[in-house]
Amino acid sequence: MSEIKPHIAFAEGWGIWSDEGSWISARFPSPQLLPLNTSLPHSIDNALLAQKSQLLSLSPPEKRNRYLAVACRTDIPPTTAMDAYLRLHLLSHRLLKPNQVNLDDIFTVLPTVAFTHRGVFTLNELDKELKKTDSEVHIYSIDKFPALCDYVVPTGVRIADARRVRLGAYLGEGTTVMHEGFVNYNAGTEGPNMVEGRISAGVFVAAHSDLGGGCSIMGTLSGGNQTQISVGQHCLIGANAGIGISLGNGCTIEAGLYLTAGAIVSVLDEHNHPQKTVKAKDLSQHDNLLFRRHSLNGRIECLPNPHPIALNPQLH
Amino acid sequence: MSEIKPHIAFAEGWGIWSDEGSWISARFPSPQLLPLNTSLPHSIDNALLAQKSQLLSLSPPEKRNRYLAVACRTDIPPTTAMDAYLRLHLLSHRLLKPNQVNLDDIFTVLPTVAFTHRGVFTLNELDKELKKTDSEVHIYSIDKFPALCDYVVPTGVRIADARRVRLGAYLGEGTTVMHEGFVNYNAGTEGPNMVEGRISAGVFVAAHSDLGGGCSIMGTLSGGNQTQISVGQHCLIGANAGIGISLGNGCTIEAGLYLTAGAIVSVLDEHNHPQKTVKAKDLSQHDNLLFRRHSLNGRIECLPNPHPIALNPQLH
Amino acid sequence: MSEIKPHIAFAEGWGIWSDEGSWISARFPSPQLLPLNTSLPHSIDNALLAQKSQLLSLSPPEKRNRYLAVACRTDIPPTTAMDAYLRLHLLSHRLLKPNQVNLDDIFTVLPTVAFTHRGVFTLNELDKELKKTDSEVHIYSIDKFPALCDYVVPTGVRIADARRVRLGAYLGEGTTVMHEGFVNYNAGTEGPNMVEGRISAGVFVAAHSDLGGGCSIMGTLSGGNQTQISVGQHCLIGANAGIGISLGNGCTIEAGLYLTAGAIVSVLDEHNHPQKTVKAKDLSQHDNLLFRRHSLNGRIECLPNPHPIALNPQLH
Repeated sequence: MSEIKPHIAFAEGWGIWSDEGSWISARFPSPQLLPLNTSLPHSIDNALLAQKSQLLSLSPPEKRNRYLAVACRTDIPPTTAMDAYLRLHLLSHRLLKPNQVNLDDIFTVLPTVAFTHRGVFTLNELDKELKKTDSEVHIYSIDKFPALCDYVVPTGVRIADARRVRLGAYLGEGTTVMHEGFVNYNAGTEGPNMVEGRISAGVFVAAHSDLGGGCSIMGTLSGGNQTQISVGQHCLIGANAGIGISLGNGCTIEAGLYLTAGAIVSVLDEHNHPQKTVKAKDLSQHDNLLFRRHSLNGRIECLPNPHPIALNPQLH
Repeated sequence: MSEIKPHIAFAEGWGIWSDEGSWISARFPSPQLLPLNTSLPHSIDNALLAQKSQLLSLSPPEKRNRYLAVACRTDIPPTTAMDAYLRLHLLSHRLLKPNQVNLDDIFTVLPTVAFTHRGVFTLNELDKELKKTDSEVHIYSIDKFPALCDYVVPTGVRIADARRVRLGAYLGEGTTVMHEGFVNYNAGTEGPNMVEGRISAGVFVAAHSDLGGGCSIMGTLSGGNQTQISVGQHCLIGANAGIGISLGNGCTIEAGLYLTAGAIVSVLDEHNHPQKTVKAKDLSQHDNLLFRRHSLNGRIECLPNPHPIALNPQLH
Repeated sequence: MSEIKPHIAFAEGWGIWSDEGSWISARFPSPQLLPLNTSLPHSIDNALLAQKSQLLSLSPPEKRNRYLAVACRTDIPPTTAMDAYLRLHLLSHRLLKPNQVNLDDIFTVLPTVAFTHRGVFTLNELDKELKKTDSEVHIYSIDKFPALCDYVVPTGVRIADARRVRLGAYLGEGTTVMHEGFVNYNAGTEGPNMVEGRISAGVFVAAHSDLGGGCSIMGTLSGGNQTQISVGQHCLIGANAGIGISLGNGCTIEAGLYLTAGAIVSVLDEHNHPQKTVKAKDLSQHDNLLFRRHSLNGRIECLPNPHPIALNPQLH
C-alpha cells in the first residue's frame, strides 16, 4: 500500500469503555483529515504519530460512555481499536475513498463484540448478561465491524436494510442500497448508484452503475481471489451475475452470468462474428463491452455494448 | 394504468408529525375500500377526491403521534405521503392486489426517513439526535418504505426476517417468506407459497408456487427491464435461478438457470427431440414447461414439465 | 432416524408463558445430555420419558417469564414447544451435531410467534398491541424459530447479521457467518469455516471449507430435493454457485455453477482429456474434484482439483 498519501487524521467523539478495561467502539461525528504538520489539540504529538496512533480519554474515568480524542497517520497500519474506528469513519464520512487509508491488520486490532439493542458489549459482558433471569438482549451482530448507520448517516442515500452496510463503507451521494445489497468496509460507490448486489472489501464502483439483485463482485479476503476489482461508470451487472475482473465504463454483464478471471471468452465484432478468444482478465477495465452466455451453445461472448445502462432518476 | 377500477379508500389511524411540520409515517389498522358515492365521515368531500386526496388531523396539534383520517381515489396518483401510506396499507391488508391501485410517482410523495428502534425520524431530526452525547439510535433503514410488519401483520403468514418485506406487499394466507426471501411494495403472493427468492415491485405470484433460495424475478424499476412479470400456480423457480418472462401454471426453472426474455431456447418434445428454437419471451405465460440448461452442450432447453412442484404443507 | 443414539436431555431455564396460557419460547443457558438411567431432579420420571417429554414450571404462576425444567428423550419426536426448544439448544450448545436428535414434526409443535424488540408475543397478543394508540412494536420476525444469538452465543464465532442464523444451528469454533450467510436449524459447521452462502436444514459442513457469497446448498424441506447433503473439509463453493450433491474433501465448485444431482458431467483426467460422462450424483462424496462449466462449449466438467481452498486465518 505504498501509494497511500500520508495525512493526519484526528477526531473527538464518544467511545465505549468496557468493564474489562478496553475501548470497544466509538462514534466520531466530525473526523478531520489534516496535513502532516498540523498542530493538534490535547497535546497529541505529531512526531509520535509516525510510529503509532494516540488516544486521550477526556472524560471522568468512571463512565462507560467516554469522550475521547484520537489521532493517527493514515499511511501506517492501525495500532488500536479506536484508531481503526477513526479510519473507518474517514471512509464513511467521505474524507477518503476505499484503498486510500492503510487498514493492514485491522482484523487483529478490532475486537469481536456484540452489537445489541442495548448497546455494545464485550463477549464476556454479554455472557454475564445472558445468565441473568429475565434479561433480554436482542443481538444485531457479533462482529468486528458495526453497521454504518448507527455511526454515520451519509447525506443523500437510501439504505433499505441497515445491517448490510458496514462502517467503513463509502457511499456517494445518490446511492441506493436495496435489501439485497451489501457494502463491506473499505468499499463503496461514487454515487449515484443502485446497489442490489454485494460490494466486497477493496472494491469501488463508479457513478451511474447498477449492481443487480444478488450479483457478486469477487473480493480478496476469502475465496482465493488475489486481484482487487473496480467497476467503471454506466455499468450493469445483471441479477445473480458476478465478476472476477474489473470493468471499464459502459459494460454490461448479462443476468446470471458469472465471469471469472480465467474464463475463456469469445470476442465478437458488431456483426456478431467471432474475432478471437481471450481470457476474461485480458478484458479487465476495457470500456463498452457486453458479456453474455450464448443460450444455444453455452459460449461466453463479449461484444460491443449496444445499450449501456441508465439509472432511473426517481430512485436516487 | 387505465385498467384500475376507481374506489374510494378511507382510513383512520396514527400518524407521526415531525418537528419540521410534516407527516412522515402512519399506521392504519382498518383501512376501507368503498364505492365512489359513499358518504364519508369528518366532512371529507367526495367531489374533491377526484382531484386529490384529503387528510384531517384529529388530534390536538402539540403531539408527535396524531390521530388522523385520510381518503383518496385509488385510480389517480397519490398526492401526499399519507395518501401513499394509505394505498400501501390497502395492499398489505389484502383489500387490493398488486397493480390494482395507482402508485404513480410514489417515490416523489414519500419522504426518505429513518426507521429506528426509537421510532421514525426525518433525516434532520436524526442528525440532531446523533450529535448528542450518549445518544443511542439503532437504525433499521433509511428509506421511503417501511417494513411491513411494523404496520400490518397479515394472518397466516411466516416472515423469517421482517426487514425484507416492505409495507405494500400483499402476502396471501399461507405464505412463508424465508430469510433470503424479499417482497417489494406492490408485489406479492396469492398464498400458499414458499418465498426464498426476490419478488420485485409489480410482480404477483399465484398459489402453490415455490421461489427457491436467492432466485430473482426481474422488476421494472431498475436494471432496464420494461415488461411486468407474473408467475402462475404450481411453479418452481430453482435456487439461484431467475426469470425475465412470465410463467404460466406448472412451470419449473432449473436451479441456477437465469432465463432472460431474449434468450433463444430450444423447444423439445416429450422424447427430448428438438422441435424448434424460439425466444424465451414467446413462451411467456405458457403452462407446464420445464426450462433447463443442457449440461453437456450449454443449450437452454424447454420441454413438457414431468413433475410440477407441490408445496410441503408443514411449512405453510 | 433410527440411527439416533438415545439420550436424556435436561435443562432448566426461563420460559415465556403467554396470556393465552401456553409456553411460547424458552432460553436454556446450560442444557445437559445424560445417559438414559440418570436420576433427574424435580421428580422427572425417566420411564415416562420414553413416551413423552416432561415440563415443570418452577415459578409462581402469575409471571410471564417463568423458571422451568424440561426433560426429553432425544430419539423420540418432540411433543411440546418447550421440548423442541430444548432440542434446538442442544444443537446450538454443541452437545449434539445436526441429525443427531429427533426433530420429526417440529413444525407442528412449535407455535408461530412474533419476535419483537419488546420480547416474544403470540399473534393474538401482538394484534392487541398493534391496536393500541401510540403502541410501537418493532418486529424482527414472525416465525417458529428464533434467531440463535438471542438464546445462545457460541464461543469463537462471528455472525454479521444475527437474524440469519436460527436457534438450532450448530456453529463450530472459528465459524464466521457473513451478512449473506444463512444457517438453518439442524444445520451447521464443524469450524473453522467461512459462511457467505446458505446452509439448509440437515446440512453439515466440515472444517476449513468456504461457502462463497450467495451460494446455495439444496435442502430437503422445500423445492423437491430428497437427499440430505453434506460438505467435506477444504471445500470451496464459489459465489452464487450451488450443489445438489454431497462433496467429499478438497472439492471446489466454480463461482456461478449450480451442480444439480441430475446434471451429466464430463469427467476429465489431469491432462484435461474427457474420460467418461456420469451423473453428478455418482460423484457425490468423492474427494479432490473441481467442477466448472467450460466457457466455450457450456459443458460441465469435473477434474482433479489442483488447488483446494485454504481459509484466511485472520477471519476466523
